[in-house]
Amino acid sequence: MKTYPNLLFLIKKMYDPATLTQLCVQLLKKCGLSNNDASTTANVLVAAELRDIPSHGLLRLSDYIRMLRNGRIRANATPKVIHQSPSTLTLDGDNGLGPVVANRAMEYAIEKARVAGSGWVAVQHSNHFGIAGYYAMKALPHHMIGLCMCNANPLVAPTFSAQGMLGTNPLAVAVPAGKEPPMVADFATAAIARGKVDLLHKQGMPIEKGFVQSSDGNPSTDPGILTRGGSILPLGSSRKYGSHKGYCMAAIIDVFSALLSGANFGPFVPPSVAWLPLKDGLPGKGTGHFFGALRIDAFLPAKDFLSGMDLWIQTLRSARPAMGAERVLIPGDPEREAEAANAKTGIRLKDKVKEQLQSLCGELEVDYPLQ
Amino acid sequence: MKTYPNLLFLIKKMYDPATLTQLCVQLLKKCGLSNNDASTTANVLVAAELRDIPSHGLLRLSDYIRMLRNGRIRANATPKVIHQSPSTLTLDGDNGLGPVVANRAMEYAIEKARVAGSGWVAVQHSNHFGIAGYYAMKALPHHMIGLCMCNANPLVAPTFSAQGMLGTNPLAVAVPAGKEPPMVADFATAAIARGKVDLLHKQGMPIEKGFVQSSDGNPSTDPGILTRGGSILPLGSSRKYGSHKGYCMAAIIDVFSALLSGANFGPFVPPSVAWLPLKDGLPGKGTGHFFGALRIDAFLPAKDFLSGMDLWIQTLRSARPAMGAERVLIPGDPEREAEAANAKTGIRLKDKVKEQLQSLCGELEVDYPLQ
Repeated sequence: MKTYPNLLFLIKKMYDPATLTQLCVQLLKKCGLSNNDASTTANVLVAAELRDIPSHGLLRLSDYIRMLRNGRIRANATPKVIHQSPSTLTLDGDNGLGPVVANRAMEYAIEKARVAGSGWVAVQHSNHFGIAGYYAMKALPHHMIGLCMCNANPLVAPTFSAQGMLGTNPLAVAVPAGKEPPMVADFATAAIARGKVDLLHKQGMPIEKGFVQSSDGNPSTDPGILTRGGSILPLGSSRKYGSHKGYCMAAIIDVFSALLSGANFGPFVPPSVAWLPLKDGLPGKGTGHFFGALRIDAFLPAKDFLSGMDLWIQTLRSARPAMGAERVLIPGDPEREAEAANAKTGIRLKDKVKEQLQSLCGELEVDYPLQ
Repeated sequence: MKTYPNLLFLIKKMYDPATLTQLCVQLLKKCGLSNNDASTTANVLVAAELRDIPSHGLLRLSDYIRMLRNGRIRANATPKVIHQSPSTLTLDGDNGLGPVVANRAMEYAIEKARVAGSGWVAVQHSNHFGIAGYYAMKALPHHMIGLCMCNANPLVAPTFSAQGMLGTNPLAVAVPAGKEPPMVADFATAAIARGKVDLLHKQGMPIEKGFVQSSDGNPSTDPGILTRGGSILPLGSSRKYGSHKGYCMAAIIDVFSALLSGANFGPFVPPSVAWLPLKDGLPGKGTGHFFGALRIDAFLPAKDFLSGMDLWIQTLRSARPAMGAERVLIPGDPEREAEAANAKTGIRLKDKVKEQLQSLCGELEVDYPLQ
């Protein structure tokens, strides 16, 4: 009988989401998180793996745990409401783990929307929260549109700037439909993700023009330039192709996340990794987020909206594909399809991530369940 | 004495904003608009001229008036509130002129925000409204952040689509500051404006790759391609450079403007020019808009926000410029500087626009005041 060791090896590297979730929960509880907060965080990280966004998945757990253990993030944080109006609220995240604070903030947005039609929550003193789409999607079962945005470390240069001043600042918007699956847009406002640049750098490959620039603000094809004062370009890449619009998007998200909340903005956003030190004398508190929920029946009868969204989705999906393209996608299609597939086959983890998890299990005296 | 006839000619082609506003008012009143509605519309169009966005200025008046005169737009429209909650409202524009309906809608958003902390207004059955930034900026004197978005004729192809399915769907966000001027982002979510493509076509010039595609969805350098089934690309230009993000932005704006309001979406948005016919059997009512107002002191003390915005603006503005660039701009800087300059020197109009105005004056028996 012929065997397929490589295939078998691949199959053996797929892990059950429940196993991974349980592992995260155990590790986080060892760092002082409540069962509830540990579960919330684990769900967000495993959702990123399921949705094929591993850059925001279990790869992050190691930094989360380093920062919990050295006191840079508070394990027993209690987010506090510091300001509110009928449709708005400001939350002090008490320097808690991002997913814990963000989850609570989105619940407040939904509660506000239930009564006031819409709910808007600005968050200060939080930390890296994983995938923005997770929180926006929490609105969907309530027949609400969910929004989520967040600022991040200053890697992105405004148009005409030689310096990185803004983050890759993501925006997520989740819109419920009737018979069709929801539309879920979840994207960063930079031309490329930091992770992709770093991967090319590691592989010794050049990067095409239009993604990064040197510390002088000149176009660069060297992905290593980010380690030498270079920066990522905004969505649009150059002024000619509309980088000022990507810059506007990042600016708007920074203002909503940091200025409305009292968090740090632009160049002052604290690093989300443990090996970079925190700066002193920051103008705000921690990292900022902004969440929104809009009740659809606060605008028109829900059934009209849901059937309208079905028609919208069917219409866009049936657009004639461009030469060489297979089909026109609706925002959220790739992630939802990945989620369904990965839930069946299991989640594949990179060796680096497995090594990190194994090392964390050793440190925290948790049985390592992965082979 | 030496004379400068060319310079003199140029100087003579600059017109006082008040004269142009008065001319618009007179012409619109002849079409049945009230003095108030005519003034509102004139202010929006002249603001576009002042802010150096002539594509949305007096050039539009001719189409507005054609459509008012043939009954396609209702001169004596009475926008009606058809749904509301404490922080939301849906407005039926009664097929009125876009600036009239949009102005009323933004006032509702501000009124809602005054009480509920935020106000969100979805508008159906409206028409082309000019520059989005005008309405967003109405929030500024109230110490509110203003938002405005609008869908438009389907000129833009989603990523992987050969067909134009969405509009250039603009987003405007105006944010008050303290001592600094406000931040006003106002941009379309496509890679290029239709007007720029048409101008190159008229001049017989090619257009660089990354802006338009053929009816097969292949890259094109022919600006005339739009007249032969071609389409404009979303912000980001290609999948590799993030066009799916521009597509997401346009999709979100379409959903907010049309699905929450009951207006027409995507390929069904009615044309905003008089020479293109209206289609029958549309799924919604007219063109859609969406407006928002957020009271800043519904999140934190206004003085903290305003001083924070001052610091944000000063920080971004003092970023080191890229090689060859003069300075880093804050969103809204170019338009505000143009406005100040044009208010002093007067507004220059293209011959084509002057001819249109002269012809309208003839038809409507209004004295033509421009030389």
